[in-house]
Amino acid sequence: MEGNYLISTNFNDTAFVINVPKIKFGMNTTKEVGKDAVGLKIKNALVVVGPRLKDSKQFHDVLSSLSESGINYAVFDEVKTEPDDENLTKGYEAIKGKKIDGLISFGGGSTIDTAKILNLLYKYPRDINDYINKPIGKGMIPEGDLLPHIAIPTTAGTGSETTNVTIFDVERLHVKTGISNPFIRPSLAIIDPVNTLTMPPKVTASTGLDVLNHAIESYTSHPYTARPPVASPDERPVYSGSTPIGDLFGLQAIEWVHKYLRRAFADPLDLEARYYMTMGASIAGMGFGHVGVHIPHAMAYPIAGMIKKWHPDDYDFGYPISPHGISTAIPAAYVFRYLSKFVPERFADVLTALGYDTEGMSAEDIGDTLYGYYIDLLHALKIPDNLSDLDFTSSDIEKLVDGTMAQQRLIGLSPKKIDKSDIEFLFKEAMGR
Amino acid sequence: MEGNYLISTNFNDTAFVINVPKIKFGMNTTKEVGKDAVGLKIKNALVVVGPRLKDSKQFHDVLSSLSESGINYAVFDEVKTEPDDENLTKGYEAIKGKKIDGLISFGGGSTIDTAKILNLLYKYPRDINDYINKPIGKGMIPEGDLLPHIAIPTTAGTGSETTNVTIFDVERLHVKTGISNPFIRPSLAIIDPVNTLTMPPKVTASTGLDVLNHAIESYTSHPYTARPPVASPDERPVYSGSTPIGDLFGLQAIEWVHKYLRRAFADPLDLEARYYMTMGASIAGMGFGHVGVHIPHAMAYPIAGMIKKWHPDDYDFGYPISPHGISTAIPAAYVFRYLSKFVPERFADVLTALGYDTEGMSAEDIGDTLYGYYIDLLHALKIPDNLSDLDFTSSDIEKLVDGTMAQQRLIGLSPKKIDKSDIEFLFKEAMGR
Ligand SMILES: [Fe+2]
Ligand SMILES: [Fe+2]
Repeated sequence: MEGNYLISTNFNDTAFVINVPKIKFGMNTTKEVGKDAVGLKIKNALVVVGPRLKDSKQFHDVLSSLSESGINYAVFDEVKTEPDDENLTKGYEAIKGKKIDGLISFGGGSTIDTAKILNLLYKYPRDINDYINKPIGKGMIPEGDLLPHIAIPTTAGTGSETTNVTIFDVERLHVKTGISNPFIRPSLAIIDPVNTLTMPPKVTASTGLDVLNHAIESYTSHPYTARPPVASPDERPVYSGSTPIGDLFGLQAIEWVHKYLRRAFADPLDLEARYYMTMGASIAGMGFGHVGVHIPHAMAYPIAGMIKKWHPDDYDFGYPISPHGISTAIPAAYVFRYLSKFVPERFADVLTALGYDTEGMSAEDIGDTLYGYYIDLLHALKIPDNLSDLDFTSSDIEKLVDGTMAQQRLIGLSPKKIDKSDIEFLFKEAMGR
Repeated sequence: MEGNYLISTNFNDTAFVINVPKIKFGMNTTKEVGKDAVGLKIKNALVVVGPRLKDSKQFHDVLSSLSESGINYAVFDEVKTEPDDENLTKGYEAIKGKKIDGLISFGGGSTIDTAKILNLLYKYPRDINDYINKPIGKGMIPEGDLLPHIAIPTTAGTGSETTNVTIFDVERLHVKTGISNPFIRPSLAIIDPVNTLTMPPKVTASTGLDVLNHAIESYTSHPYTARPPVASPDERPVYSGSTPIGDLFGLQAIEWVHKYLRRAFADPLDLEARYYMTMGASIAGMGFGHVGVHIPHAMAYPIAGMIKKWHPDDYDFGYPISPHGISTAIPAAYVFRYLSKFVPERFADVLTALGYDTEGMSAEDIGDTLYGYYIDLLHALKIPDNLSDLDFTSSDIEKLVDGTMAQQRLIGLSPKKIDKSDIEFLFKEAMGR
């Protein structure tokens, strides 16, 4: 793998940055949250939790731990799965008068992302649009550190607990974008596999596929040395392109998802499978958190944003939803087959991590084999393998393509230069019929 | 490798913590130090540098970058290779009146360690003994964050830029110990392979062997789940024992040292070899920084502390010295052969990372093969393969054993329970004749 990072000092950037929070990993570590909060000098916590978990035993353990350590708290449970700017702004309005000196988030990526944004708006109040990534928002950077934030994921998926990124919808534009800056990262991630035991099967499947895509997309991103130089280190993008350290995380996460996702889906209480899926999600997060993701994630945003009436089992919220992991996984099968033709070496490494012997495979073989693996995995997890099953039709393609092309920050990380016709081709393929 | 981490929730601790600084990795990134210092709000920097580098072009680039960014600085160059408590205290006396709001360290492990201690004593002045690890010192923890510290390593070795640990001699006791707490870690590590191009060959050899030992020792430490439980998270030791994430770093670092150390030793300007040695040192640091090291490092401390008149080429400082990497490497060959008998599986993985096919090897074969590899490597790097060549004799063994047994924090991380007779046996072996 090393050959990829030969150094072009004259014309390209030569650096990447890794910036992860303190991470505590282990069974039942959630119960230490009170003591950890004391260590971060939190006295009045805002505890952010989603509706699915607010009445759970685990969440009561979080609150008890805080009480035992003498910490006052208020609970914020208005978390929307796949949040949007209006709902986040409303959330901020609800907390802005309160006395808060730290946050605890307990939930999936949406919950942790919501807490990151509430922290930002509470500490440095501005219109959310001021902070949203350019070109949709103004991309402003906060003046300094936010409040301490302990993130406790309950899914093995987004890796949001370790990243500088949040993702949400902008309602008026029907587009997924987000806020990325080094200040929104949590201060401490408590990664406790026990919290994932109650994830329903389809949530396990969707979030697990998200991990697989983080790993494969970051591993196959263009190398970090392919970016143009920057005038100042603060201009360096959060996503650098692939790096030797990201590669290490990516390949290991692929192996673990391969080995453990089907087991966790089949038996929610398979503790060993939950352990390695949780660990895999975290390391994939440490990888893509500095490397980035590319085409499947870019295509996922308009898919999620334009969903009409579909939702999978275990996501019955009374509104249509294509969960983030499913939105990335359906295009991924087609994208990886397509890109393998252009950068077969990197995709061959992915196949090796999935247990294949790639000796003698042509670029086309590599693409077809990975496609076959991916489709089989979707079937095993009972996830549709095409967009028609999510009620998309060929008349949606134009808008889907435009929505994807708006994600230039991600498209630029593709290992092959991608233009509109590539994306159009890929959506036609992903339509499936 | 997964089977090692099965979970015993009742009797043992179940958690490990990873806490690394922001890391910027890349060619010529040293020149960005001024802008990075501005980002950390540093206005009056103390720049810590060793005597070998203070007149180098690279160091002048550091100072120019600070000046260009409008940062005032004072240079502290009284760094001793393998520092001691008295020399560190004297260093603090020299800076205590100065106006300092941040530190930059540029050098090897001794330089970065010196800066860590100066930062601690400057920000929270106490007798250094108050901070030294128990049982030698009082093991006190500072009240809060220290000043921002940018560490720029110029060797590919200690990994000190990413760890919570410093190592030095206590003069009155002739013993190596140190200070370990989460506050002394630098805020930003700038890891620039270009800075390692001027390392003399024996410094390359010694520091590179240190990387190999960090990787092998951390990979072969007892698993983190073998520790007794803690009443509170702040009682958890900095060194947890081996973890799945530490394993990932360790095995990759072993591969890179195997592939690139001889090349960097033979040709100091082999940029590719320097690149991967630097990266290997950093990831081994991120690994052992939370996992720990064991017997070879424990034996190294009295070896370094009791050296009589020997020093290798490229370390002509006018006083005897066994550099840290050499002090760990000589015992390592014997220790790994010995421990392989008891935990052959982990050492078989080490051999696999070194390119061996271990299929069908007995525990004894594994130990002998690793020993053979190690001795060959020492010969290739022109490092003695026994302690007699460093002027030790059998009459030194008793004191060497006592000095090793004092390092209980490390000895406890061995994969096999170790007592005095094991260490005595190992020193006899390492004496070589
Ligand atoms: Fe994702
Ligand atoms: Fe070391």
